[in-house]
Amino acid sequence: MEADIRHMKWWGWGYEDVTFDDSTKPELWPYLKRELGVDEIRWKKPVAFEDVTLPEQKNNEAFLAAIGAGLGEGQVVDDKKSRLVHAAGKSFRDLWLMRHGQVQFAPDCVVYPDTEEDVALVVRAAHEHGVVLVPFGGGSNIAGCLVPSDRGGRMVVSLDMCRMHRVLEVDRYSLTARIQPGVYGQHLEDQLAEHGVTLGHFPDSFLHSTLGGWVATRSAGMQSDIYGKIEDMVISLRMVTPSGTIITRTVPKSSNGIDIKHLCIGSEGILGVITEVVVQVHHKPEKEDWYGWLFPDFKSGLDAIHECHRGDCMPTVTRLNDPKKTALSFAFKHPKTGIKDKIAKAFKWYIGNVKKIDFNQCCLMVVKYEGTPQAFNRIKNRVTAIYKKHRGVCLGAEPGRSFAKVKFDFPHLRDYVMDRSIMADVSETATTWDNLRTLHESGLADVEQAIKDTGVDAWVGCHLSHSYRTGASLYFTFGCLQREGREIEQYLYVKKAAEDAFMKNGGTLSHHHAVGTEHLPWVEEDLSPTGLKAVKALKAGLDPNDIMNPGKIIPSEKPLDDWGLSAEAIDEFQSRS
Amino acid sequence: MEADIRHMKWWGWGYEDVTFDDSTKPELWPYLKRELGVDEIRWKKPVAFEDVTLPEQKNNEAFLAAIGAGLGEGQVVDDKKSRLVHAAGKSFRDLWLMRHGQVQFAPDCVVYPDTEEDVALVVRAAHEHGVVLVPFGGGSNIAGCLVPSDRGGRMVVSLDMCRMHRVLEVDRYSLTARIQPGVYGQHLEDQLAEHGVTLGHFPDSFLHSTLGGWVATRSAGMQSDIYGKIEDMVISLRMVTPSGTIITRTVPKSSNGIDIKHLCIGSEGILGVITEVVVQVHHKPEKEDWYGWLFPDFKSGLDAIHECHRGDCMPTVTRLNDPKKTALSFAFKHPKTGIKDKIAKAFKWYIGNVKKIDFNQCCLMVVKYEGTPQAFNRIKNRVTAIYKKHRGVCLGAEPGRSFAKVKFDFPHLRDYVMDRSIMADVSETATTWDNLRTLHESGLADVEQAIKDTGVDAWVGCHLSHSYRTGASLYFTFGCLQREGREIEQYLYVKKAAEDAFMKNGGTLSHHHAVGTEHLPWVEEDLSPTGLKAVKALKAGLDPNDIMNPGKIIPSEKPLDDWGLSAEAIDEFQSRS
Repeated sequence: MEADIRHMKWWGWGYEDVTFDDSTKPELWPYLKRELGVDEIRWKKPVAFEDVTLPEQKNNEAFLAAIGAGLGEGQVVDDKKSRLVHAAGKSFRDLWLMRHGQVQFAPDCVVYPDTEEDVALVVRAAHEHGVVLVPFGGGSNIAGCLVPSDRGGRMVVSLDMCRMHRVLEVDRYSLTARIQPGVYGQHLEDQLAEHGVTLGHFPDSFLHSTLGGWVATRSAGMQSDIYGKIEDMVISLRMVTPSGTIITRTVPKSSNGIDIKHLCIGSEGILGVITEVVVQVHHKPEKEDWYGWLFPDFKSGLDAIHECHRGDCMPTVTRLNDPKKTALSFAFKHPKTGIKDKIAKAFKWYIGNVKKIDFNQCCLMVVKYEGTPQAFNRIKNRVTAIYKKHRGVCLGAEPGRSFAKVKFDFPHLRDYVMDRSIMADVSETATTWDNLRTLHESGLADVEQAIKDTGVDAWVGCHLSHSYRTGASLYFTFGCLQREGREIEQYLYVKKAAEDAFMKNGGTLSHHHAVGTEHLPWVEEDLSPTGLKAVKALKAGLDPNDIMNPGKIIPSEKPLDDWGLSAEAIDEFQSRS
Repeated sequence: MEADIRHMKWWGWGYEDVTFDDSTKPELWPYLKRELGVDEIRWKKPVAFEDVTLPEQKNNEAFLAAIGAGLGEGQVVDDKKSRLVHAAGKSFRDLWLMRHGQVQFAPDCVVYPDTEEDVALVVRAAHEHGVVLVPFGGGSNIAGCLVPSDRGGRMVVSLDMCRMHRVLEVDRYSLTARIQPGVYGQHLEDQLAEHGVTLGHFPDSFLHSTLGGWVATRSAGMQSDIYGKIEDMVISLRMVTPSGTIITRTVPKSSNGIDIKHLCIGSEGILGVITEVVVQVHHKPEKEDWYGWLFPDFKSGLDAIHECHRGDCMPTVTRLNDPKKTALSFAFKHPKTGIKDKIAKAFKWYIGNVKKIDFNQCCLMVVKYEGTPQAFNRIKNRVTAIYKKHRGVCLGAEPGRSFAKVKFDFPHLRDYVMDRSIMADVSETATTWDNLRTLHESGLADVEQAIKDTGVDAWVGCHLSHSYRTGASLYFTFGCLQREGREIEQYLYVKKAAEDAFMKNGGTLSHHHAVGTEHLPWVEEDLSPTGLKAVKALKAGLDPNDIMNPGKIIPSEKPLDDWGLSAEAIDEFQSRS
């Protein structure tokens, strides 16, 4: 089975030939227009490829000679398109700069290793000749993970892992699989399916992100409630560092001192390049299906999820939207005609008048069950009873299945709104159950206030899509009209409000999107100053020349300034309110 | 609820007033005698306390003055008994040296901190004045975790955490508990029980080990199949290092770069002192009970456990003994009289003649179920069906309950046999399911051969008491008559055979007993040379003066020699066979 290793468009989400189609969603733009106070669309299409100028290329000839001896044709490229595609991730900042042709950084060349030996050759040569390496998975990150904040005048090489995309071995008895890191989500699942197994890791970025990227950033997939986050799935790994190759043993558990595997997971490329991962896999479920539920308010939905955890009966996926996110979901829906329209209207009447659900407060929940037919039914019945107890109303399979069909399409929405000069991004966190509602309310209020400070109407919504015995994540989405001429500052000011709210209310800087550069101002508070010293010690010990993805995880002395938000800008925005 | 913070006897397991009583186990000594080829008991009682001479005490006056200013009366002690109690753990080597009065190391004083501030004061003073600190939990370790292999002429202080034994906070909604590290197992569960919750961590050392010790060594309790190892239970922690205090946030999951928590878990005191842990807890189960099962052979038992994992129906405890371990278990049993004896004999006849189970090959399994009455029955019924499919015969509740009654008593057996000049210890590991039988067979054969090389009869048994989706642990117990005059070498030679077998057959150096000093010769192979560099980088970065428990996890240049086994001894033992 061959990999589809096309890259995403350089200025937005997805392949060049895929765009977001709003013709089947007639209510979407009217909804956004109304919510965001758009009088007239200010169109802002990306600049043409031809009009983009890349920063001047820097070549380290000794490095190129050293790797040239060992790599084959096509493994080292430096054409404009390749450099541009590897220049940024998909944060609002990344995309805004790209769309405006403001390419402040691009790697000087891109290297495609075929083997761990290739990686070791490149890392060794970079270490010896002072070249910066930026590991590249799918380029889907939204935390600024690809831009080296301190290149120190050095050549920068993007190490694109996409050719290392094989499932090398599946042990169906132990349920482990040994896999190369550059494999994209779909190709990974296709290969595993040949053995009748699944990894069970389906992040929203699934189509355009890789196993290595997931491990390096502590990614979470939508089935995390059952299968865990990626860090729970990794059994062992190999990582090439400038000081040699870390190899951990494929054993289920150990007491061999500090767990070296966990130094590599989440290291975001600052210590080395992950070259192989052994993960836990699962037999493909015999039966699976999706359902939609409506809860009268966010609290009822949260209480229902909490009770499912306490009863050890969790669906595979539980995704609860708050009222704003619910309204956005409804704006996505296909228009119904004929008898379907009549049934939908009658059902809506029933929900409003019999079930007494207020459509301004109601919360849509999407769930997925899976397993043997017996396990499927057992869990579904138990969950249904709990949901009903918390005044949930089952909407049947259709809303769930609709969600499942488009579940990897949401990131396209941002390109759609950015075409219309709208700023939109996300910030997500996690906290314990006792803290969840406070953090939800604070997050909404603080982000909304921040947007208003910038002088425009705010849309802020939140959903919960990963929950655990001790707590859950909260995923905030925000949008507003861009402040012309101050777009990046505006975005950073709003993002700061979200992250500050997380820190203030017992959250973490991110549940599954990594530190990168976008979360650097909060990392010292999150890890504690001494915790950060530990990261610095590892970095200094394994990568003494600081060639591996410099400027990630470890902040500078003045992280907020380097981030791009000046004290003056903060003062000015705040003085408006 | 007050803590029982008496220490264990300095030369053996348990409190001074508790001894192993064999009068209710009339078959035990005859069994051991026969198996080990004991003609006549060579009695070897521990030397009297009065006859023990401790190494000369070294005092660092500047350090003592610095901590004296901040600590109260009774927090710093240096009497002979205190120094002796803190001088060693409970490995065969530790106990043999203690029993023979060969006290090669004892801390120069013992400090009992009451608060994190006390710990920080002591760590800071030690860092400044060049004093070695050895954190002390319950002193129950069997991996040489307490003896500093490189004190460099410095004063050594044992930091006994037992006064920091409070459960500080229980969040019954999020199911987390914030706990001080010095609490012993029973006292911890007693305090949690007041809130209706349990940690679910019950290692064999439970009565004499502490939460901080568990976290520092990546301990496993007998309910790990459901509740996980201790590293799976920790939500956040605080650790005082010479470079400051690491504080991680109490969130269920995060993507904040490298997971700092996992640098502290398993650090065995080489980076700092754990001062607080937030753990996941569980509601006390409404119903729980134990059962015994008999399988015709080890493979059937393994297959049954494997199938339970595949069906997601695991008992809370599953402990499968191999034939030798089963025979030892039977030798422990109370004699039956009257009608009970008749029933037992009839049942034995039934098992042998109807079920066709060979008593030389059969394997005893002990299981525990728990949960709501419904969950209890559901899991028990499903497990029963699977066990029967694999030719298991249920022995009823009695063997399980008997095991439960004495489950924390097994470590006493070693003192009993050491009184009789028998060497006995354990080595345990973990590997993937596909590898388990090979490793079991190799482990048994290699350890048995090693014992025979030393010129005596061998007893080697194994049990499986922790299993996971991808694999399980194997716990080997071995015993033989001591070779007089070469007792330590003999022990090390046998231990080496076990560890070599683990490494050769895809295991790890220990599943839950830590590296300490006893596993140093295998740590580089287990972590990989570059993995070990990562540990060294952390150590150098956080503890630049190497004051924290030096000589643990990180081996010297010649680990086997420093361990105490010379090439000559190996050659000589090997030449016998």
